[in-house]
Amino acid sequence: MPSLTLADLAREIGATTVGDPQLRLSAVRSLEDAGPEHVSFYHNRRYLEQALASKAGALIVADAQPFSERNLLVVKEPYAAMARVVELLNPQQRPAPGIHESAVLGANAQVAADAWVGPHVVIGERAVVGERATIGAGSFVGADCSIGTDTQLHPHVVVEAGCRVGARCILHAGVVIGSDGFGFATVGGEHRKVPQIGIVVIEDDVELGANVCVDRATLGETRIRRGTKVDNLVQIAHNVVVGEHSLLVSQSGIAGSTHLGHHVVMAGQSGAVGHIHIADGTKVSAKTAVTEDTEPGSWITGFPARPHRQWLRAMANLFRLDELRRRLAQIEAAIEQLRRQL
Amino acid sequence: MPSLTLADLAREIGATTVGDPQLRLSAVRSLEDAGPEHVSFYHNRRYLEQALASKAGALIVADAQPFSERNLLVVKEPYAAMARVVELLNPQQRPAPGIHESAVLGANAQVAADAWVGPHVVIGERAVVGERATIGAGSFVGADCSIGTDTQLHPHVVVEAGCRVGARCILHAGVVIGSDGFGFATVGGEHRKVPQIGIVVIEDDVELGANVCVDRATLGETRIRRGTKVDNLVQIAHNVVVGEHSLLVSQSGIAGSTHLGHHVVMAGQSGAVGHIHIADGTKVSAKTAVTEDTEPGSWITGFPARPHRQWLRAMANLFRLDELRRRLAQIEAAIEQLRRQL
Amino acid sequence: MPSLTLADLAREIGATTVGDPQLRLSAVRSLEDAGPEHVSFYHNRRYLEQALASKAGALIVADAQPFSERNLLVVKEPYAAMARVVELLNPQQRPAPGIHESAVLGANAQVAADAWVGPHVVIGERAVVGERATIGAGSFVGADCSIGTDTQLHPHVVVEAGCRVGARCILHAGVVIGSDGFGFATVGGEHRKVPQIGIVVIEDDVELGANVCVDRATLGETRIRRGTKVDNLVQIAHNVVVGEHSLLVSQSGIAGSTHLGHHVVMAGQSGAVGHIHIADGTKVSAKTAVTEDTEPGSWITGFPARPHRQWLRAMANLFRLDELRRRLAQIEAAIEQLRRQL
Repeated sequence: MPSLTLADLAREIGATTVGDPQLRLSAVRSLEDAGPEHVSFYHNRRYLEQALASKAGALIVADAQPFSERNLLVVKEPYAAMARVVELLNPQQRPAPGIHESAVLGANAQVAADAWVGPHVVIGERAVVGERATIGAGSFVGADCSIGTDTQLHPHVVVEAGCRVGARCILHAGVVIGSDGFGFATVGGEHRKVPQIGIVVIEDDVELGANVCVDRATLGETRIRRGTKVDNLVQIAHNVVVGEHSLLVSQSGIAGSTHLGHHVVMAGQSGAVGHIHIADGTKVSAKTAVTEDTEPGSWITGFPARPHRQWLRAMANLFRLDELRRRLAQIEAAIEQLRRQL
Repeated sequence: MPSLTLADLAREIGATTVGDPQLRLSAVRSLEDAGPEHVSFYHNRRYLEQALASKAGALIVADAQPFSERNLLVVKEPYAAMARVVELLNPQQRPAPGIHESAVLGANAQVAADAWVGPHVVIGERAVVGERATIGAGSFVGADCSIGTDTQLHPHVVVEAGCRVGARCILHAGVVIGSDGFGFATVGGEHRKVPQIGIVVIEDDVELGANVCVDRATLGETRIRRGTKVDNLVQIAHNVVVGEHSLLVSQSGIAGSTHLGHHVVMAGQSGAVGHIHIADGTKVSAKTAVTEDTEPGSWITGFPARPHRQWLRAMANLFRLDELRRRLAQIEAAIEQLRRQL
Repeated sequence: MPSLTLADLAREIGATTVGDPQLRLSAVRSLEDAGPEHVSFYHNRRYLEQALASKAGALIVADAQPFSERNLLVVKEPYAAMARVVELLNPQQRPAPGIHESAVLGANAQVAADAWVGPHVVIGERAVVGERATIGAGSFVGADCSIGTDTQLHPHVVVEAGCRVGARCILHAGVVIGSDGFGFATVGGEHRKVPQIGIVVIEDDVELGANVCVDRATLGETRIRRGTKVDNLVQIAHNVVVGEHSLLVSQSGIAGSTHLGHHVVMAGQSGAVGHIHIADGTKVSAKTAVTEDTEPGSWITGFPARPHRQWLRAMANLFRLDELRRRLAQIEAAIEQLRRQL
């Protein structure tokens, strides 16, 4: 375990220090769990009380003001700084390069000399595993696949034949890339399979959560562009394109041939129908169903999806319908009375 | 790579040709990606512009009218025809029969001579693997299971003990068949497990997408009838019966003991509660929650589910409540005025 | 196959018998499938007709009244009694202790002498597998993990490094424990990974369904407390705490840092946003989105979630808006007429 001083950390993350620059810190801990040898962080007002009560030796904060007599690292982005401090104090251990004796490699598979291939892995014919890539236990990399440099496959990942994964990607356990798209031609009430002969391309710096599914294209490719992060149990159908730096939160799903722009956020359990275009910067709320093209930078909510404020308004109205019904009955009574008075 | 003439393809798919019958075509491509040696298809008006602009050597279409001076294959069902052309131009390669040396077979397991069992597969005692079946790398077939002729298990499929899979099925990576149903008897606030001793039966010509879960029955069987297609990440609970030729789209879920008729469609992220009957030909929209029995051929939407048109109407009304509230306020003012005038 | 008499079973489950105490019963079957040598059960009025028509040799019931001339086991909790009878008639067979020769064990892994480790399993360095635990084929137990006594891992379970699983747990196929939480610090439009260095703790008597994902904590731990049961395809994010004896039904999802009390029920396809507290005994209906803290014992429904009765009322009102609009139009006409009459 390394330990670094407050001054060391400040230099690495570009922070101003408050307190003792020689204080040694060995690990990042949550506000509750931290002790005098730990650094913690405060970035969400919800946790101010805990931050004030924390026994952490030092705190990473955006504003020193609420904290008196504390050792502080003051930075603009405490959460990003915390991430960097975790890296510094917990240098990742990669397995020593090599191919486990139980792994099965197809003819002409090319594994870089400094890559690691774990136990019970299967690598198909002509597949390429890049420099420093790690292929977790039991993973399957099909024929003609490529896995980029520094990419990590956790245990039990499946990359089916012909698919390509870029550099510095992280694929968590149970990810399936290149399963067949859900394509059938229904003739006389029977669903005939449309062969899915396209591929999947995962660009650089993409992370895919546990048990995510990305289907291969019917023809051509399904593509996830660079920098996009996908949470657990997400479904990405055939011929979908997800733009750069997007976030797909857990259990969301994108139907076939839909294209997402860059910096799109699909919140948890949201979905998009097929054959639409979700514009750059669209924010789709949790549970929302996107059924048509969206405007760049829009925020939409509900099923059917509407602009978020319009949805909020509709929901407020919905839960005031009893009041509205009461007013209507009063009006009807008033009219009856007026009639009688005439 | 085979290549066939326009006339060859027309004969195979029962199409009328327009243009040069001797044109050689080597592959199916999307409208955008196709070049002069490729055949593409047009079946959705949304893509008419792309079809007209496509550089494809030939197009499969239902109607020749919009296309002048093009090589065409004119058929009633362009999408089904395209599927067949893909098959003709991309004959599937099955692995050579055999059992990989790393596979582990239990006592009295029976694997047909022309089946293929991949690396790191485990086949349980007395399990039967049929003619020409293929068991993908790392898959698990439990004791007393049967896998039908020509059925394909992709890598990492799990079929737990005693379950039966029919002929010509396709099970994608990460499928789990025969996990325990979610059955507990709650006594004094503690959930006691109800042993799940039934099985799962998957009939012929069923396809199950990646990471689909089909639980074994408490008693008896969970059954998916022939010709039904299930998309990725779908949940099918214990004692469910799914009828023939149904479609369960991604992330839909069917709770325990619910029975689906034939030709039911459950769209993406829809769900059904337990112990109900979803009648033949019911269409359940995306995100919809089915909470009671349905009528044959009905189309239902929303939560709670209603007939689709009724739901559309309710949603239209919901987003006009501000207008309704305004009218109500005007009426109240009018009545006030009328009172004053009397 | 053991067989027991009605009297034997009555003694084991604390039931009163009606009929022939010497009747031998060999198995539990559903009402439809049971024959004279089988015991079945009746616990849900929906199935009274089937119970009366059943050919079962004996029935477990709460009330003998509807059943004349039948052999009965009368108990307060027929469903729990049935569970016990299934156990008695189907004693579970555990595999004989031992470590399969194809399993790969890291340095200083400790596997109890009476545990079972299946084919193609990988156990990491210093991991501990407890007494009588069974590790299914192809499962992965990472470095420094612990698996408690009598715990069963079905095939293809992944427990990533450092995570702890208690005693008597059941983890179904495809479960992933300890995947990275979905944590990013977005700086200049790029999502920088926040290292996830916490762990997952699964306490005793927890069951996790097929393809369930439980993410490791950013710092500290994600924890599922004892007695909680989780259905297939559920997502549990980083730093979540699920209290004792809760039920998380299929395809539900809990976002990061949310805490659930004890005896919480999350019905199918429900979800909870991050950083909230779902109080003891809260019942969350299917498809519901919990967006704020809940009251103990509350029952909430919809998106946005409301008290169940309030939601029912709002839905009833929603589908009567056409009537309301008609009344409004009539009122407007009446006022017009009144004006003319004045």
